[in-house]
Amino acid sequence: MPSILVLHGPNLNLLGLREPGVYGTLTMDDINTKMIELGKELGVEVHCYQSNHEGALIDALHEARTRDAGVVFNPGGYTHTSVALRDAISAISLPVVEVHLSNVHAREEFRHKSMISAVCAGTISGLGVQSYLLGLRGLVEKIKTTD
Amino acid sequence: MPSILVLHGPNLNLLGLREPGVYGTLTMDDINTKMIELGKELGVEVHCYQSNHEGALIDALHEARTRDAGVVFNPGGYTHTSVALRDAISAISLPVVEVHLSNVHAREEFRHKSMISAVCAGTISGLGVQSYLLGLRGLVEKIKTTD
Amino acid sequence: MPSILVLHGPNLNLLGLREPGVYGTLTMDDINTKMIELGKELGVEVHCYQSNHEGALIDALHEARTRDAGVVFNPGGYTHTSVALRDAISAISLPVVEVHLSNVHAREEFRHKSMISAVCAGTISGLGVQSYLLGLRGLVEKIKTTD
Amino acid sequence: MPSILVLHGPNLNLLGLREPGVYGTLTMDDINTKMIELGKELGVEVHCYQSNHEGALIDALHEARTRDAGVVFNPGGYTHTSVALRDAISAISLPVVEVHLSNVHAREEFRHKSMISAVCAGTISGLGVQSYLLGLRGLVEKIKTTD
Amino acid sequence: MPSILVLHGPNLNLLGLREPGVYGTLTMDDINTKMIELGKELGVEVHCYQSNHEGALIDALHEARTRDAGVVFNPGGYTHTSVALRDAISAISLPVVEVHLSNVHAREEFRHKSMISAVCAGTISGLGVQSYLLGLRGLVEKIKTTD
Amino acid sequence: MPSILVLHGPNLNLLGLREPGVYGTLTMDDINTKMIELGKELGVEVHCYQSNHEGALIDALHEARTRDAGVVFNPGGYTHTSVALRDAISAISLPVVEVHLSNVHAREEFRHKSMISAVCAGTISGLGVQSYLLGLRGLVEKIKTTD
Amino acid sequence: MPSILVLHGPNLNLLGLREPGVYGTLTMDDINTKMIELGKELGVEVHCYQSNHEGALIDALHEARTRDAGVVFNPGGYTHTSVALRDAISAISLPVVEVHLSNVHAREEFRHKSMISAVCAGTISGLGVQSYLLGLRGLVEKIKTTD
Amino acid sequence: MPSILVLHGPNLNLLGLREPGVYGTLTMDDINTKMIELGKELGVEVHCYQSNHEGALIDALHEARTRDAGVVFNPGGYTHTSVALRDAISAISLPVVEVHLSNVHAREEFRHKSMISAVCAGTISGLGVQSYLLGLRGLVEKIKTTD
Amino acid sequence: MPSILVLHGPNLNLLGLREPGVYGTLTMDDINTKMIELGKELGVEVHCYQSNHEGALIDALHEARTRDAGVVFNPGGYTHTSVALRDAISAISLPVVEVHLSNVHAREEFRHKSMISAVCAGTISGLGVQSYLLGLRGLVEKIKTTD
Amino acid sequence: MPSILVLHGPNLNLLGLREPGVYGTLTMDDINTKMIELGKELGVEVHCYQSNHEGALIDALHEARTRDAGVVFNPGGYTHTSVALRDAISAISLPVVEVHLSNVHAREEFRHKSMISAVCAGTISGLGVQSYLLGLRGLVEKIKTTD
Amino acid sequence: MPSILVLHGPNLNLLGLREPGVYGTLTMDDINTKMIELGKELGVEVHCYQSNHEGALIDALHEARTRDAGVVFNPGGYTHTSVALRDAISAISLPVVEVHLSNVHAREEFRHKSMISAVCAGTISGLGVQSYLLGLRGLVEKIKTTD
Amino acid sequence: MPSILVLHGPNLNLLGLREPGVYGTLTMDDINTKMIELGKELGVEVHCYQSNHEGALIDALHEARTRDAGVVFNPGGYTHTSVALRDAISAISLPVVEVHLSNVHAREEFRHKSMISAVCAGTISGLGVQSYLLGLRGLVEKIKTTD
Repeated sequence: MPSILVLHGPNLNLLGLREPGVYGTLTMDDINTKMIELGKELGVEVHCYQSNHEGALIDALHEARTRDAGVVFNPGGYTHTSVALRDAISAISLPVVEVHLSNVHAREEFRHKSMISAVCAGTISGLGVQSYLLGLRGLVEKIKTTD
Repeated sequence: MPSILVLHGPNLNLLGLREPGVYGTLTMDDINTKMIELGKELGVEVHCYQSNHEGALIDALHEARTRDAGVVFNPGGYTHTSVALRDAISAISLPVVEVHLSNVHAREEFRHKSMISAVCAGTISGLGVQSYLLGLRGLVEKIKTTD
Repeated sequence: MPSILVLHGPNLNLLGLREPGVYGTLTMDDINTKMIELGKELGVEVHCYQSNHEGALIDALHEARTRDAGVVFNPGGYTHTSVALRDAISAISLPVVEVHLSNVHAREEFRHKSMISAVCAGTISGLGVQSYLLGLRGLVEKIKTTD
Repeated sequence: MPSILVLHGPNLNLLGLREPGVYGTLTMDDINTKMIELGKELGVEVHCYQSNHEGALIDALHEARTRDAGVVFNPGGYTHTSVALRDAISAISLPVVEVHLSNVHAREEFRHKSMISAVCAGTISGLGVQSYLLGLRGLVEKIKTTD
Repeated sequence: MPSILVLHGPNLNLLGLREPGVYGTLTMDDINTKMIELGKELGVEVHCYQSNHEGALIDALHEARTRDAGVVFNPGGYTHTSVALRDAISAISLPVVEVHLSNVHAREEFRHKSMISAVCAGTISGLGVQSYLLGLRGLVEKIKTTD
Repeated sequence: MPSILVLHGPNLNLLGLREPGVYGTLTMDDINTKMIELGKELGVEVHCYQSNHEGALIDALHEARTRDAGVVFNPGGYTHTSVALRDAISAISLPVVEVHLSNVHAREEFRHKSMISAVCAGTISGLGVQSYLLGLRGLVEKIKTTD
Repeated sequence: MPSILVLHGPNLNLLGLREPGVYGTLTMDDINTKMIELGKELGVEVHCYQSNHEGALIDALHEARTRDAGVVFNPGGYTHTSVALRDAISAISLPVVEVHLSNVHAREEFRHKSMISAVCAGTISGLGVQSYLLGLRGLVEKIKTTD
Repeated sequence: MPSILVLHGPNLNLLGLREPGVYGTLTMDDINTKMIELGKELGVEVHCYQSNHEGALIDALHEARTRDAGVVFNPGGYTHTSVALRDAISAISLPVVEVHLSNVHAREEFRHKSMISAVCAGTISGLGVQSYLLGLRGLVEKIKTTD
Repeated sequence: MPSILVLHGPNLNLLGLREPGVYGTLTMDDINTKMIELGKELGVEVHCYQSNHEGALIDALHEARTRDAGVVFNPGGYTHTSVALRDAISAISLPVVEVHLSNVHAREEFRHKSMISAVCAGTISGLGVQSYLLGLRGLVEKIKTTD
Repeated sequence: MPSILVLHGPNLNLLGLREPGVYGTLTMDDINTKMIELGKELGVEVHCYQSNHEGALIDALHEARTRDAGVVFNPGGYTHTSVALRDAISAISLPVVEVHLSNVHAREEFRHKSMISAVCAGTISGLGVQSYLLGLRGLVEKIKTTD
Repeated sequence: MPSILVLHGPNLNLLGLREPGVYGTLTMDDINTKMIELGKELGVEVHCYQSNHEGALIDALHEARTRDAGVVFNPGGYTHTSVALRDAISAISLPVVEVHLSNVHAREEFRHKSMISAVCAGTISGLGVQSYLLGLRGLVEKIKTTD
Repeated sequence: MPSILVLHGPNLNLLGLREPGVYGTLTMDDINTKMIELGKELGVEVHCYQSNHEGALIDALHEARTRDAGVVFNPGGYTHTSVALRDAISAISLPVVEVHLSNVHAREEFRHKSMISAVCAGTISGLGVQSYLLGLRGLVEKIKTTD
């Protein structure tokens, strides 16, 4: 059974604890539970990791390189600035689907540019927890068709 | 049974007939068939429309306003320039999910900016026909939860 | 009795039906009625046309060229992008007054630039239906003084 | 009878004395006379003031705050640069209609941006003395409807 | 005998009727006649089409895809803004020569950028009706050498 | 006892009279009273001046040059545009602390740039009347340590 | 007794050891001592933390969320680039006062923009160790008045 | 004997009193004396005026309009921002020579752009008091040759 | 028989010797031969010159001024930067047709801007050696019609 | 024997394991071995460190401050964004030579700007492992000559 | 008797022969004669040189380095682009006065920026041949006062 | 024995004669001597050329094309502007190593961009004469490994 990494970037550990008006009341653990369940349904093993450290996210991507079949990644605030994360995604040669809970294009100007999207297989944003779930579906479909 | 409009923008009528290396061999009709099938599975009625005319796409959105529960929309080349389509989406007060077959962020600079995303419920790109299918799933989920 | 074209651009057909908080409760037909009445008072014959199609608006301007004495034009979302409409206005050599219901300068950055204003006789914005009515007054005054 | 301030910015005291090809042969006094007459017709008392001093224009707006029902304001060359005038208009909470004799969008690039428009009720440009007269009409209409 | 489409964009139907100082006194029909004659001389069949509608121009390019050997295209005001036309040219895989009557680089700044040129075989501008005639010569030469 | 100038720029005379939601209910006189009191506590004589005139603010800085030991300055709307005020601060060779009541970085884009900050000893913003009081403390500390 | 976090960003551990001409001879420990003393005077408990790791600073802000009443934060070089720190400040819903020892506006262009200021209660820069001390005063005042 | 206005902008009253390393030890009165002497030699009557007020400089230019034959103008910090002064120079239809003591192009980026130069007869910068003296020579020569 | 200068800019002497995939296998001498032949057919005398020196190209244009009836000019890499060549073309008052072998708009961003086009009669690019031949045809046609 | 730090930034631990077409087949360990050998030849002791964490790289530079004579640093993806690393290099007052394996100027636009170069002794890029080896030679030479 | 180089850049050899409406009817030789005469009056020996070659102008500046006391330089079209000429002026450590016949700020946008001004003693523009003559006066005055 | 061209751009002939604080006291001849010596050590024949003429540098690169195995090139001030030199390097298909004596990134903004780097094998800057010597080493290594 192929394995998938669900990777959460900075501040997502506070999900559900802050600004429920913007981000909903689901916690990160709730999302992880849903992802693991959907993974089972789709025949993949999902494991989850979060860090506020850019370097730790790079390390996690590197570890995924030989262990996982793909990554669902919410890079949070590093989306807009991190060349190092972009290079890590390029380097590991795995399909990565970038996901965002909120519609980043309806927020501040500096959130409209992603350093990450160009090296990802696809991008999904604005659909809340569905962004993650659809991201997993899309990733699994992609892995199957390229096998 | 709620009704959903699948709206294709300019040049998508040539899908499968051109540049299969970039866009795959599926035709627009193939996508429409898959969307209608998935719609049945999800309990919504899907109907499809394509036009190369910006004005005709606006008209189609206006018609959807009182008839449909939501729109899956691939605005094609109008994505990057059309204020009028943006205004149409704002005006109809329906959830619209923007979809793109290819990863627009990995293409030319002028394709990185979307005039449309800020007024859509969500955006999905880069996952080929899955962008449409996941878009429909996300839209249906959204309609259910806001009922 | 000179004839005047009142030309409405994209999405104005939904006026009064959408976002009354922003645009008021007057419909486009209400505006047209008021314009025809004021036209009578000022001694001009007013006829009205709306389209969501950029090309149809260009066609309408071309038709006005030999038939009308001037145009009151709300270019809607095409205001900010259309070189073709700008060229049409230049080409017909009629006085055109650009009008906007809302104050475009108090909205998004991309609405601050007009491709149209530079080739119009004048511009009026932010005064609701008065933008149209004052536009007609200004146009009629202009036509009289240049006779 | 409500009172209206007609406020002229820098260099408008030379009107009719300079570049008649661009600005016509009407002097500022001629405009003032026409405005007072139209004011009578519309049932408002018009008084007029001009200064080349940015600070004096701010002072005049402050004085209008508790005395007048609205302002017709031609900010001249300060249009494009003055944050202080913008703040003054915001501060006095009166409807202000910005007017320009010439079509600023058909002139140099630096005249296309207005610091003032975003905080005004509306803007009228390019129609010569009619810009002022229509501005007064629009302002009076606005005051009436918000009473 | 191979067939060639001569495609005229917005406002070119008014040629010869407006601004003869800028565009000369030739009408669009005059140009078409000259193009058909030169086509005979060069051994190709020329047929001509004009529309003010961006969508209709896209439709025309799509129709040319399986019928014609190449296109001489004056995109008019859509030159500077239309991603959709650019995509249409890419999609049809025919050689397209972009032509302009006037020297667009000697006009307003916004006319210096072409969205179209990058996907055309070549571009000719500034030579009046000769831009069209030389465009046809260049296109025919190109078709011959790539046969 | 050293003397300190508290200098208020345009529109600050309306403080407390306008937009209390944004700026609080303290008037400029209230601030002046607090500043004079704190000055006594810190052993300096505070005197206060306000003008809406850029030139009058420059004159006031010039007068401070030989009379005062430093300036607490809220340049208001001139913050973002005035090279002349910047030059005046450079010219008088006194420590100047720039203060703002509101957080200018959380407001419009054009308020993010200060022409003044680069030539001031320090800048304090966003803390309401505390911006002034802390500015006075910082200035007095600076004067003492450089004696 | 409320608790306050004093948070130092990258390279501030070298303070007093490097470039004393620019940053003075005080070490970070000296600043911490002064802050703790002033805290006692103002009735708050001050504790201090420094890290060169962006992620560790985010972690520290998260920990402050339920423990402290506010933060005095010098984000150092992360000021100008970190969206993730900005999001962390937004997420914790505590008042944060941004402080800088030097006048960042008098240094290189890229130091003039702060990603952090817009989400802070206030900003103080250029006053050396006083920036920290006044920041603490302002923060305590703010906490008191919003209680 | 024709009369010439020498007009000094903001902060020039402090000349010789501040930063002698940059601006030399000559005071504004010294410059005025030299200008009057050179005026005698060249057969023109020189009178001098300085103000820190943008509006007062505009007033002075207006007064020169019917009294003087030309102006030598150092606009100081208003050089880079004042559309109103630019309009005043255009309006008075007198030859104006813009002068600067220092080389503005070797200073900060924002001093490289002049709003004034485009409407002046000529510009002289970087030559200290010689900028004024050569400006007077150039202006007198210009007046003579256009008589 | 009128005389025409064919002027080749930098690096064109290496044509056919380098990158045949991009530029074809024709040498500059081959092009010159074809141009001379076509010149005979069109009744003009063609002479050719190449230099890698910007100054030598300016000298060549100056010499053409009194000797030739027009110029076909490929400015190569100087196209994008040379104000001096632009001024030379303006100065000689001859019709100049700018030609490029490759489609400069499909290459790097910095090749999209031409300093030369605005002062040329016309521009032809992307058609290989046909760019030169059509350029000569267009130039001869232009010379005839303006005789 | 002086000691030199060879510092590798993010993703360089994957060297030789990824994209050998771009980066060659040498691993980071191979480079370290070569550097240590060359160090012996040049009479310096080389020790090596890699991290994906920006903060860990700053910590490493701080440790080098009192222990090493200089640093050969490949900042990887942090090159283009990190003000904090720039400040760390400034703070430690050691000569640092920036090295890159690939030619960053022949890659994406955002890799053309380095935040690091301005504070380094020198920069070497594009020469593969030679960039490191020449960097060490240059650094040793620099240390010798400034002794 | 000190010696002065008058250096003319590209296209100035055509002066008086082209566009007399813009540049007057004086030839470059006429200017040289006037400069030599004024040189005699001021006690300096003037010699003149012109080239269209950027490299030849650099060579001429290098030769002036040990022979002349200063340079009056009209860099023509190289003004706006030449870093190499800028470096040459820096390298020779002579006072150079930049002169322009026309008012470059009233011409195209790209002529508003000078690469040269920042390293010159002063700049004079817009005064026709007087720009040269005043430039010589200013240069001689400068040489005298720095002796 | 392979031959290498050492090519010096504008103003480098003055090396050692000007600004020794910036560029050191070595002359260009000293560098050439060192390069020839190092060449002998590395088994290549070094010959050197300098010109201030952009065209002469292009000619020199063309000559190197069939004679030399590679080029060490300091393009001086042409680095930042010359498309023609860039094209020459592309055209000759030889490895070129770009070298700079000073750290161009620590100088003016306009020196941060290189038109040349993208087409060079590598770039070395900031290490004084070592930039040249290391450049030669890198080039020879490159030639060996690609043999």
